[in-house]
Amino acid sequence: MQKILVANRGEIALRVMRSAREMGIKTVAVYSDADRNALHVRYADEAVHIGAAPSNQSYLVGEKIIAACLKTGAQGIHPGYGFLSENAAFARMVADAGLILIGPSAQAMEVMGNKLSAKAAAMKYNIPMVPGTEEAITDIAEAKRRAVEVGFPILIKAAAGGGGKGMRIVDGEADFEEQMQLAVSEATSAFGDGSVFIERYVSSPRHIEIQVLGDTHGNIVHLFERDCSVQRRHQKVIEEAPSKVLTPQIREQMGKCAVDVARSVNYTGAGTVEFIMDDNLNFYFLEMNTRLQVEHPVTELITGIDLVKEQIRIARGEAISFKQEDLQIRGHAIELRVYAEDPANNFLPDIGTLQTYITPKGAGVRVDDGFEQGMEIPIYYDPMIAKLITYGKDRTEAIERMVRAIDEYKITGITTTLAFGRFVMEHEAFTSGNFDTHFVKKYFTPDVLQTGNEQEAGIAAILMEQLLGQKNITATSIAATETSNWVKNRSRL
Amino acid sequence: MQKILVANRGEIALRVMRSAREMGIKTVAVYSDADRNALHVRYADEAVHIGAAPSNQSYLVGEKIIAACLKTGAQGIHPGYGFLSENAAFARMVADAGLILIGPSAQAMEVMGNKLSAKAAAMKYNIPMVPGTEEAITDIAEAKRRAVEVGFPILIKAAAGGGGKGMRIVDGEADFEEQMQLAVSEATSAFGDGSVFIERYVSSPRHIEIQVLGDTHGNIVHLFERDCSVQRRHQKVIEEAPSKVLTPQIREQMGKCAVDVARSVNYTGAGTVEFIMDDNLNFYFLEMNTRLQVEHPVTELITGIDLVKEQIRIARGEAISFKQEDLQIRGHAIELRVYAEDPANNFLPDIGTLQTYITPKGAGVRVDDGFEQGMEIPIYYDPMIAKLITYGKDRTEAIERMVRAIDEYKITGITTTLAFGRFVMEHEAFTSGNFDTHFVKKYFTPDVLQTGNEQEAGIAAILMEQLLGQKNITATSIAATETSNWVKNRSRL
Repeated sequence: MQKILVANRGEIALRVMRSAREMGIKTVAVYSDADRNALHVRYADEAVHIGAAPSNQSYLVGEKIIAACLKTGAQGIHPGYGFLSENAAFARMVADAGLILIGPSAQAMEVMGNKLSAKAAAMKYNIPMVPGTEEAITDIAEAKRRAVEVGFPILIKAAAGGGGKGMRIVDGEADFEEQMQLAVSEATSAFGDGSVFIERYVSSPRHIEIQVLGDTHGNIVHLFERDCSVQRRHQKVIEEAPSKVLTPQIREQMGKCAVDVARSVNYTGAGTVEFIMDDNLNFYFLEMNTRLQVEHPVTELITGIDLVKEQIRIARGEAISFKQEDLQIRGHAIELRVYAEDPANNFLPDIGTLQTYITPKGAGVRVDDGFEQGMEIPIYYDPMIAKLITYGKDRTEAIERMVRAIDEYKITGITTTLAFGRFVMEHEAFTSGNFDTHFVKKYFTPDVLQTGNEQEAGIAAILMEQLLGQKNITATSIAATETSNWVKNRSRL
Repeated sequence: MQKILVANRGEIALRVMRSAREMGIKTVAVYSDADRNALHVRYADEAVHIGAAPSNQSYLVGEKIIAACLKTGAQGIHPGYGFLSENAAFARMVADAGLILIGPSAQAMEVMGNKLSAKAAAMKYNIPMVPGTEEAITDIAEAKRRAVEVGFPILIKAAAGGGGKGMRIVDGEADFEEQMQLAVSEATSAFGDGSVFIERYVSSPRHIEIQVLGDTHGNIVHLFERDCSVQRRHQKVIEEAPSKVLTPQIREQMGKCAVDVARSVNYTGAGTVEFIMDDNLNFYFLEMNTRLQVEHPVTELITGIDLVKEQIRIARGEAISFKQEDLQIRGHAIELRVYAEDPANNFLPDIGTLQTYITPKGAGVRVDDGFEQGMEIPIYYDPMIAKLITYGKDRTEAIERMVRAIDEYKITGITTTLAFGRFVMEHEAFTSGNFDTHFVKKYFTPDVLQTGNEQEAGIAAILMEQLLGQKNITATSIAATETSNWVKNRSRL
């Protein structure tokens, strides 16, 4: 493999190209109209235009990607994450064209892409699942018997349902019959089908996932966990490795389970096995993502392994470059996804131009991004501007570096999640490790950021005085300086 | 210590302030006229102007530094490297003013600041020294007897000498008398004193240094070695850790020696014990630097320890945050000093404005710098623009990342050592590890960089065509793209 095409854009396209370049592999970028001047286009050795801005006219069109490969002589395709990365039909097209997909087999994607088949595959290895009924139930007495077996609190959810409709949490046996009746009638009226599933309700869930790698020689290893419990709108926004709550024993058990899940589909390449964990550290299989994750850098920092290089080696038919027993966790890493979103407005996207864009530097700071000052964040794609990743010898140092790095990050022109990230880093629930996926719902309200706005008003006069006055800023009051940093970092937040 | 003053400028001032900020310590910058708009001034919580641009009117004036501390209420001073960092008189002034110097005692600086007292201190611990005569000799027969004892090749050097005058290398006994006579007569005519020292000549020397830390509780640890053998004009330009040539046994011996050297002066803070090593891995004490080294980041990357934070903790009276046995080398790190110097013109400084200044990013890349695009490199100080540091799981990956990072680094307006760095990274002597302090003299000539210039001319037409032509750069020839990168990176080189 002398040349690869990166079928993606933004930070992940650059991320992949950097590793390829280090391996002496030439890179081909693809780009839509909206990405004509994007950094990944400039970074690549070659670039091919593949269509209009909307993804379904460019980055999602498998035929165009394959045509670009054939045109440029690229032998392999790295799909990044999102877009075509978990598309089994695309994986087959790639193979049919005589090209190599840097990712798992189409079959593995298919099995893991469907909740039922994924669960069935995992069951063969006795992977723990959230306890519950296998089949849909309508009979109330039968349902109650099963609920008692599963153990309260339980969740009743419509078999035909979705979007939370017909879902009920039941805390104990006493309430069960009433709630079940309501759930069945809700489900019947909403979906014309009153049957429901019953499963254990995890009231304080953590999202813990295990990174795995499999090669074509039958080796499968895991690279420990990532804790992705801080989410907004059910999407990860802060991830870290290792998790603050895992014990070495649980870590080993989860690692073994993740390797087994991968083994159930003869997994090759990089993948992630996601688990939900309750506050007694019981963990249950959720799903497997058959691609590189957005949050893979935290794993790279604690293990010292370049995951993209491993992906490429595996796709070339080489063995994984290390053994499970060689791997050790060193230090702690945290990633903050810097989104063009307004935390004060339910994290709605806030698209525009990066009027100021200065990234933090120094020991233990990595910024994976795809933009430069003056560039526009296109409305067509995911509004992530960058991933800010910090590393420290322990969790405390990683958090302190994250706060320092957020303070150094200067973005104006667009509202971002930076101030939200700072709020999380300084929140007692986060620093103590005592948090779950409800963190944002529980603790975050826009007014925690408003405080800064009020300070700004009060302090503007002092800043203006400095700016208009002399350059010598000797003995500026500490309060003013602090707020000045705050203003700089929060930009429009 | 709630607030510290950083008595330095440029990248090291920012480096120190970042760690202080992570520890929740406020920072005070000092600046000369030339540094009015420097980044370290903007980064600090407060800044004090201390005089005209020449160092001896600003950064070297201890009284001004202390006055700035007293004015701002800073309790401690971090001197960085250079300037006042190894000045024992300044260290005493600081103590007399009731302030804390973040560094060793004045006494330790004094002992190690003088070659003879440093050697005497180290001798108490039987630290290996380059074999040779303790006293100056004039008698030829006596000299010959000593030369045979020391072992050939030997170096004869004038006791009163300097600058290489009266220095002779003698390969074997047969030549000795003739060379000795010449040396004595040269020394007599040059210095009016014909006496000489005789010592073992290390023909293929490597510069290996050991990082140490000592605290006020009597703990002294070492943080392994750095290999700084690639030098130009007797100054380090590329440093790495660990060294390619050390065995675990030699590493342990050198570490023990370095700790002993530090112990000989009850060393507190961060220090570096420098050794010269011959090609049989015999090592000899050279000197101890009683400050943070420029190249400290490579040690931080392989150990995971923040040396500046340790310095601050030690100055606060705390113990070193780890034990010797907790420390392990993981991976490999290389630093390239990016100087505003022209490698094609004997590395003479090339001062000017950073017209383009874009730093590399991504996995395993750290840039410690003190400049932004549009800034001028002042003529008054060291012409170092930045330190480009790469980390990899092994030496090969660190080298590959360095090449990739150099290619991403875009500097125009000033000639830099970037292209020289790339030359070294790709040179067989460097990649094999088979090099010594004569690397530059042996292998580097300006024409190794000229090759690129010639290619540029040949390729300019193709590039121009692209620029004037359409934006779609599909299927650009590989050669053209490669050279385009080369042109971008080499700027004026």
